[in-house]
Amino acid sequence: MTPQPSMPSTPRWGLFQLELRGPAGGNPFVGVTLGARFEHDGRTVQVQGFYDGDGIYRVRFMPDAPGPWRYVTESNCPDLGGRTGAFQCTAPEPGHHGPVRVADTFHFAYADGTPYTPVGTTAYAWIHQDEDLQRETLATLAGGPFNKLRMLLFPKDYTYCRNEPRLFPLEGRGPGAWDYARFNPAFFRHLEGRIEALGRLGIEADLILFHPYDRWGFSSMPAEADDRYLRYVVARLAAYRNVWWSLANEYDFLKTKTPADWDRFFQIVQQGDPYAHLRSIHNGVTHYDHAKPWVTHASIQHGDAPRPQELAHWREAYRKPVVIDENRYEGNLPYEWGCLPARELVHRFWLATVGGAYGGHSETYLHPQDRLWWCKGGVLRGESPPRLAFLRKILEEGPPVGFSPVSPYSARQRDDVYLYYFGNSQPAEWDFVLPEAITYNLQIIDPWAMTLSPAGTFRGTFRMLLPGKPYLAVRAIRVE
Amino acid sequence: MTPQPSMPSTPRWGLFQLELRGPAGGNPFVGVTLGARFEHDGRTVQVQGFYDGDGIYRVRFMPDAPGPWRYVTESNCPDLGGRTGAFQCTAPEPGHHGPVRVADTFHFAYADGTPYTPVGTTAYAWIHQDEDLQRETLATLAGGPFNKLRMLLFPKDYTYCRNEPRLFPLEGRGPGAWDYARFNPAFFRHLEGRIEALGRLGIEADLILFHPYDRWGFSSMPAEADDRYLRYVVARLAAYRNVWWSLANEYDFLKTKTPADWDRFFQIVQQGDPYAHLRSIHNGVTHYDHAKPWVTHASIQHGDAPRPQELAHWREAYRKPVVIDENRYEGNLPYEWGCLPARELVHRFWLATVGGAYGGHSETYLHPQDRLWWCKGGVLRGESPPRLAFLRKILEEGPPVGFSPVSPYSARQRDDVYLYYFGNSQPAEWDFVLPEAITYNLQIIDPWAMTLSPAGTFRGTFRMLLPGKPYLAVRAIRVE
Repeated sequence: MTPQPSMPSTPRWGLFQLELRGPAGGNPFVGVTLGARFEHDGRTVQVQGFYDGDGIYRVRFMPDAPGPWRYVTESNCPDLGGRTGAFQCTAPEPGHHGPVRVADTFHFAYADGTPYTPVGTTAYAWIHQDEDLQRETLATLAGGPFNKLRMLLFPKDYTYCRNEPRLFPLEGRGPGAWDYARFNPAFFRHLEGRIEALGRLGIEADLILFHPYDRWGFSSMPAEADDRYLRYVVARLAAYRNVWWSLANEYDFLKTKTPADWDRFFQIVQQGDPYAHLRSIHNGVTHYDHAKPWVTHASIQHGDAPRPQELAHWREAYRKPVVIDENRYEGNLPYEWGCLPARELVHRFWLATVGGAYGGHSETYLHPQDRLWWCKGGVLRGESPPRLAFLRKILEEGPPVGFSPVSPYSARQRDDVYLYYFGNSQPAEWDFVLPEAITYNLQIIDPWAMTLSPAGTFRGTFRMLLPGKPYLAVRAIRVE
Repeated sequence: MTPQPSMPSTPRWGLFQLELRGPAGGNPFVGVTLGARFEHDGRTVQVQGFYDGDGIYRVRFMPDAPGPWRYVTESNCPDLGGRTGAFQCTAPEPGHHGPVRVADTFHFAYADGTPYTPVGTTAYAWIHQDEDLQRETLATLAGGPFNKLRMLLFPKDYTYCRNEPRLFPLEGRGPGAWDYARFNPAFFRHLEGRIEALGRLGIEADLILFHPYDRWGFSSMPAEADDRYLRYVVARLAAYRNVWWSLANEYDFLKTKTPADWDRFFQIVQQGDPYAHLRSIHNGVTHYDHAKPWVTHASIQHGDAPRPQELAHWREAYRKPVVIDENRYEGNLPYEWGCLPARELVHRFWLATVGGAYGGHSETYLHPQDRLWWCKGGVLRGESPPRLAFLRKILEEGPPVGFSPVSPYSARQRDDVYLYYFGNSQPAEWDFVLPEAITYNLQIIDPWAMTLSPAGTFRGTFRMLLPGKPYLAVRAIRVE
């Protein structure tokens, strides 16, 4: 096929959307099938469409290769099937690197190869708050260090988060009277707007598909409704480059589902998503077996500061990236999960880093109107975010490769950078062991004060004086 | 037997010593057997004597009951056997409560029932230093918070501790030429003087019988020599009320011994000690199975801050008191085991306390003459000892019963005292759950500032404001 001059265009990893008119009677969410095959350079990508209400059907597609693409639709409805067309995939928009993938077993990179170093936070129910608060959340994110946001699709009913949402994902008359076979397009259009807004900020939407904090009944739908919901969500959202699938928050606290349910959910998501967005599931206490083939990375809740041997165990058990998405939160709540000092949370991020893993942030300070960032978004009041920005800068300014652990105290990026983090140790001197043939500039890093102090040029094995204070790091950077 | 007016007397838990003249020729350490039966009120206690050089033989005995005791010696040497005598056991000396025993499964008490709450330190090789330094060590201990000292019998060869000792426990011409069948009475008399000096300070001597830091050959003696050494040590020292038997430091790093050796050593010590002094063994990495019947308590080395679930596991696995004798040391060494900030070590003691266990201290600050307290004794330079004194006071001023864990944050002494420790959490308020029928005075404790602040009178379930700072504790004391 030769591209036409008038052919529409879509940037690489942008969103191509086909809008079709079709039947509005009956229940199109169930009765009408719609899909499309997109072809480029001898390759075919099969995608699912969805009904968007008012007789409108859509097919969305994220092209991953520049050049001409053509498509043909398929449907059990003659009005919708057999439509053909083409578009030109152009260069990505500035700053767009594609969806995030696993790289080098334990790390991440965007589709174009640019390393992605997750520095995540949560504002679980932010899309269910009033519009002003959602705008405030986006403004906060725009000025913050975070490049991943964990967020719930269903509304949340939990301490400090009892307000009724404006929109629900299902049609019906509320709890006990949902129509499990009819989705609410207005809800999803709103959600998509939020995902797009995050995308504009360079933030991955780590979208949580099930959770136990529920008074509306979404956590206890029939299996058929669960499955239909997943297929609909994936059909609508998979073409957004910045979507990650988090099957659940605290899956093991969701007593309405069995292990077999979770396995099936993973497979439905995997089969419906031609782009293979990242997939994981977050535990309450017991890890899901992240070694299963449909899991791309381990999303872990862990109450304590991670120990090197724990991180090593998880890396080896799963052979996948390890993200401690919940390691308790900075705050002052009367609950053990929400009252960490900022210093301790920053400490945990650094421990994760030298363990070859990634930390996770959120914030839970008591507020007179219960505006806790962790759940509702809004503004950040804590002291950790600037320190996490400092850490992210250190991670991102290194070579394009993740950290591999060397010892309980240290990790390296090939032989280019060695990073030591002494945590709650306060050595006044230390024996460093670096490659004999390479010269390094050493820096003493204070992760809390956010300072980098030159400490001299070294090679091989040497003893170096240190400040004898806890929570310091040392970075050795190869002299070119 | 009617006590005679001229009968010698020994205080309860004091040391009665019988000195006998016997053969000095041949090798009396091996060739001559000596023991005695001590009788009181229809009960017989069998003890072993020992050769002390120069034709002097001794039998030592610690009476545990007041009133008249009589004895008769037994020997394969006519000069030594069949000697009889008697003494009157009088009231204990002021402040002497007898040897420490296990109490209430997980805790300790002196023989007279007085609770013993271990706050231990180490000065492993202090008896092998020059006399001035030993005197300095005793002076430091006299002014410090410690009531237990872990100390090696054999000299120590390790980083910062390379000096040659003045006395060795064996006769011979040094490494490779020890006479394993001849002990050096001068060494043991010196050791005994040190144990007595500790006893005068109210400090338990947690005597370590084997260890791997050795350049002299004491860690690789033949089995027969090991066994003879143990029998000799126990015969000499068991009558000292403040002796504990620690079979080893880092037993699993001592590759010359097998698990069966350790089991045998325990049994030799147990059989030779009629007073059943406390017995344990300290690990490098792998715990000895402290559930074995000859172990009285778990002596644990653990690198990290203890987690509540770890402490609970150890308590349940062993059903014995848990003492984290080594939880890293306060100091600034270039080794991970010796560079904890004082604040972290104090934190670990408090974690152990609310976990129903006991912490352990030592100190390893770099010193120009390598005078590190941890190994050589001398003076303490750190910041933790006053805080440990503060903790010990809190532990000792409560009711005479140990703490039982209630939650990961709290423990209680019956319903008399509830102790909460929030560690690296900083709640600004907390929900307390106390018995409904009892009124409590609450105090906020700052373990670092060493302050106790009244926080009001409460009962039942209530929410109380807290300072929102980490490393604080709360104590609820029953109002009489």
